[in-house]
Amino acid sequence: MTDTEKGFRLGRRGFIASSVALGSVAPLAEQAFGAQTPVIHQPGILTPQQPFAYFITFDVATTKREELVSLLKKWTEAADALMAGKSVEGLVDSGEIAGLKDRDLTITIGFGPTLFVKDGKDRFGLQAHRTPAMADLPRFTGDQLVDARSGGDLCVQCCANDPQTTLHASRALTRLAYNIANPRWAQAGFLPSFGKGKTPRNLMGFKDGTINPDTKNPASADRYIWAAQSDLPWMQGGSYLVSRIIRIALEHWDRTPVSFQEETMGREKLSGAPIGGRDEFEPLTLTQKDRDGNLVTVQNSHARLAAPEENGGAQILRRAYSYDNGLSFTAERWPPWRQGMEMDAGLLFMSWQQDPRNAFVKIFENMSKFDMMNQYTTHIGGGLFACPGRKEGGYIGQALMEA
Amino acid sequence: MTDTEKGFRLGRRGFIASSVALGSVAPLAEQAFGAQTPVIHQPGILTPQQPFAYFITFDVATTKREELVSLLKKWTEAADALMAGKSVEGLVDSGEIAGLKDRDLTITIGFGPTLFVKDGKDRFGLQAHRTPAMADLPRFTGDQLVDARSGGDLCVQCCANDPQTTLHASRALTRLAYNIANPRWAQAGFLPSFGKGKTPRNLMGFKDGTINPDTKNPASADRYIWAAQSDLPWMQGGSYLVSRIIRIALEHWDRTPVSFQEETMGREKLSGAPIGGRDEFEPLTLTQKDRDGNLVTVQNSHARLAAPEENGGAQILRRAYSYDNGLSFTAERWPPWRQGMEMDAGLLFMSWQQDPRNAFVKIFENMSKFDMMNQYTTHIGGGLFACPGRKEGGYIGQALMEA
Repeated sequence: MTDTEKGFRLGRRGFIASSVALGSVAPLAEQAFGAQTPVIHQPGILTPQQPFAYFITFDVATTKREELVSLLKKWTEAADALMAGKSVEGLVDSGEIAGLKDRDLTITIGFGPTLFVKDGKDRFGLQAHRTPAMADLPRFTGDQLVDARSGGDLCVQCCANDPQTTLHASRALTRLAYNIANPRWAQAGFLPSFGKGKTPRNLMGFKDGTINPDTKNPASADRYIWAAQSDLPWMQGGSYLVSRIIRIALEHWDRTPVSFQEETMGREKLSGAPIGGRDEFEPLTLTQKDRDGNLVTVQNSHARLAAPEENGGAQILRRAYSYDNGLSFTAERWPPWRQGMEMDAGLLFMSWQQDPRNAFVKIFENMSKFDMMNQYTTHIGGGLFACPGRKEGGYIGQALMEA
Repeated sequence: MTDTEKGFRLGRRGFIASSVALGSVAPLAEQAFGAQTPVIHQPGILTPQQPFAYFITFDVATTKREELVSLLKKWTEAADALMAGKSVEGLVDSGEIAGLKDRDLTITIGFGPTLFVKDGKDRFGLQAHRTPAMADLPRFTGDQLVDARSGGDLCVQCCANDPQTTLHASRALTRLAYNIANPRWAQAGFLPSFGKGKTPRNLMGFKDGTINPDTKNPASADRYIWAAQSDLPWMQGGSYLVSRIIRIALEHWDRTPVSFQEETMGREKLSGAPIGGRDEFEPLTLTQKDRDGNLVTVQNSHARLAAPEENGGAQILRRAYSYDNGLSFTAERWPPWRQGMEMDAGLLFMSWQQDPRNAFVKIFENMSKFDMMNQYTTHIGGGLFACPGRKEGGYIGQALMEA
């Protein structure tokens, strides 16, 4: 976690206006919030990935703007308290993590496009403040998004060292929202404990997240992750989340020879190295050819299609988790061509970016059409959310609600 | 983990016939398997609880006895390999935990009543060997068991330090079972990392498992957990699992004052002490009365109804996990009396015992009728499974299949 994020978590007293994390947004932030009140980023974005996540979205039930504001204030206070390991004002703690040390909890709150306008209706007078970057995602080739697991007016991402800690935080925020915002869908995620700094493997058995913007480099974070200076003032210091529940056809994948898995991925399975390379962090072998003149990293491989070099430099910060929803009835399109109960498991894809139009949308437009991996993956849910920065002492979304 | 269980996990080379864990079953075991071949217990029963579990059951699809035997052999070999961190013969590893250290994996395999007789049919010539202890569980008051999440001919419990490790093991065993046994239902579980030796809290916020038979005392384990000497020879060294998915009405619970929660539980929430006591491990205050002559631990409290003193000494080994299945649509019977999406979460109850008739069934018969906690809990799935001991070098279930 960066110093600024630590500062965020400690609240007022611990706040340090670190120039590293604030980077170049401070001047505009001052414009948005007034001088002397720098914008702080929400945690759970640049924070080194904790092993567990609980992602939940809400439909706002109230039609009253002041009740929405009141909820955002309560949530902000509660998030600060929970991250500091303290009790939440107005709630008797549910107790399931009482006495638990080393929680490393972060809570990240965001706004979906439907908060701004829904069914053509400007619900809370926010329509004019919907940022251009929040344009509806197009329907991509192969999308099978289920309404019950997609969208939401608000989102909360809780990440921690422990699944009971993420659930506890989500439960508290859900309680605070009773009658104001109703839970819509939720998805828990996990990572194996490969150790800090190691790229985790996803359920396909490949390392996931090797190519990510350098989160320790403020210039890189400002360029790829934090909202642009030209974005609306309320979104300064914020980041856009594109989340997707991606089911993996594990039976089919497991029956695919590793050599073809590697060709599909464009990387070697065990080392994570590019095809023909040795080290995970070597540049991709995008131009190298074999003796017969064929590209060693094939044209429609996942790694090639995702590479910045193939997308005009576009980058997203992948902060994904594995998910497991037990078994579900599935009619497979692929070998072993059978229907029955199968593991409903895959990837809780969480991508953070400056502007989805130049990032997820740009990258995934090609991938959704050409990626060999699509044979094994199905996008079944997800959403787009704006997770703004915040003024120290203010509440999350204040600059939006007061814009 | 006991020495014997470690020995089990290391396989042939590491096996030590510890008199502690074998206890008094050895003589009968010899009778069952022949002299010089002591029975070893399966791990995952006495093993100190790892923080993650994946429990999956299967319907046997084949009608051929030799294919069932072949599967049990493959599963035994695979379980040994996986627990030793080795690759499984005949399977290309799916790779998602490659390089992961400190897995602490245990795999426990069991047989459901339907393996012995199903719809009146003796499928594999095993009907005569169904033990009396495997009598069908009665339908308890309040049971709302859903067929799709109940029963199964076979069960596999994988426990480990990591959810990806438990999933990896289940996935490998599922692959080995293709066309022979089909997955029926699965439920993942987790525990917060309170630290070794501390009683974990469940989602009700109370410590869960304070009163358990002493697993370090061989006489206690022989009396309460391992099959009786008078049980059938193939079940020697084994234990019976009663598993239940218990959904908790978290919204309702959270709206109940802590004082009433404590009365319901028969314990204090933070300390876990009996009502009026100070320490978690003090004896329950079953006879103490307050100034007005009322019992301090009320008649229908959970702790009282579960206490050995109230059940003729009956005891089970609780080795339960929290579960979280995201949100589901629920029409609540209790405040806040609303219908909508709620957290589908609760307890993956796993109880181990010598004989369910004198243990779970005896204890739960009263509890299902009178426990104040039933207002908050609903049993929605589960099953009964016999998890036999095993001869070193043999396969799990060999004594049954050769009986």
